Amino acid sequence: MSAHTLLLQQFSLLRLLSAEALEQIAPLASTRDFAKREMVLAKGPPVPYLCFLMEGRLQAIDFTLDGREVGLYFIEPGDYFGELSLIDGEAQPEFVIATDRARVVLLPGAEIRPILFSSPQLAEALSRRLAQRVRQQLSQRQILAVANPLHRICAQLQIMIGGTPGQTPQQLIIKAPTHQELAIMVNLTRETVTRTFQVLLAQGVLTRQGDQLLVDKTKLEKLASGEKKEA
Amino acid sequence: MSAHTLLLQQFSLLRLLSAEALEQIAPLASTRDFAKREMVLAKGPPVPYLCFLMEGRLQAIDFTLDGREVGLYFIEPGDYFGELSLIDGEAQPEFVIATDRARVVLLPGAEIRPILFSSPQLAEALSRRLAQRVRQQLSQRQILAVANPLHRICAQLQIMIGGTPGQTPQQLIIKAPTHQELAIMVNLTRETVTRTFQVLLAQGVLTRQGDQLLVDKTKLEKLASGEKKEA
Repeated sequence: MSAHTLLLQQFSLLRLLSAEALEQIAPLASTRDFAKREMVLAKGPPVPYLCFLMEGRLQAIDFTLDGREVGLYFIEPGDYFGELSLIDGEAQPEFVIATDRARVVLLPGAEIRPILFSSPQLAEALSRRLAQRVRQQLSQRQILAVANPLHRICAQLQIMIGGTPGQTPQQLIIKAPTHQELAIMVNLTRETVTRTFQVLLAQGVLTRQGDQLLVDKTKLEKLASGEKKEA
Repeated sequence: MSAHTLLLQQFSLLRLLSAEALEQIAPLASTRDFAKREMVLAKGPPVPYLCFLMEGRLQAIDFTLDGREVGLYFIEPGDYFGELSLIDGEAQPEFVIATDRARVVLLPGAEIRPILFSSPQLAEALSRRLAQRVRQQLSQRQILAVANPLHRICAQLQIMIGGTPGQTPQQLIIKAPTHQELAIMVNLTRETVTRTFQVLLAQGVLTRQGDQLLVDKTKLEKLASGEKKEA
């Protein structure tokens, strides 16, 4: 088995490929490294690759007509991205930026596309992933209608820990977003996020560990719901 | 060809089925009528059907933790819905309400699901539709970050006319949403939408025609972009 094949097998989507299809596609894979804050995908032209994040973290962002930055979602190692263009041939709908140094694996879209739809297993995995994205966006939409900034930020943190697999139920660790990264996700100013984080740290909902955040899930749930359900 | 088969052939997704598969699934189809404001799907339990809208119009809505209504998207005749549960077996993520009297065709999920993923054409159509939903949600997310209410409502109307097929390029007709239906889509009060509509009607951007709205696309685009690009 080639080094390229081993590289691709770390991605759950590609583990669904037959050994034959994997060997066929492996030599076409390439890797690219990105510096922190570097642009990984530009908004606009269709992306000619299916992209997989090997290391680091990315954030999808956009800008409103009046120039405000909008944070859409984070991409964590193991995730793939750029799949919308692959599916419908239309424009890449957002910018993707490296929030840390990152390594990305690229597979040419023209070669991977027919394989994706001809296998019921892969087609189903792709649909499940898109369905999950629709669900995440629905949760995100709901958050933006929450009037209270503290509740809104707590609800956003709940989404972020929800997407983190293999954690203990009570204390969850996430890569700490910067206050600005969080602010553009929830339509608040960086200053409001900073003030809210001071409250969350003081109350023990969050604890800093280097560049990670330890989240107390029970305390977070209480705060997010406005503690109304508590005695 | 049975009446049921003819009924199903009006939906573009089902026209991709082989004649054999269509004849097989047709006897399982049922129709249901809904009164205006009646609930078509409840949030929560997985939907055991793939649902197609034959007549009328539906709106997907949800509520925030603090009880505010959130408008998510409209469903127009020919559209299908309830597909997220069908794909991943998870909960129905939102309420679906009839904004007009509506007729819905139901196909049992257990029977239609294996057919969907075993045909590359259907799997691709399903993925394209999901990709389109992700794109719509991204546009919707961007709108919510627009600070100016007039620009935000214009941008929302642009999304709504964008989803209307077969229209002339300059003057577009859409089914008029109520001010409340629109308000919950864009996180504004009904009063703000009413005031903004008075401006849009006075400036000839919108013209009422019974329960429809005639939209002047050029004027709308100018307003949505803040007219900054105009001399």
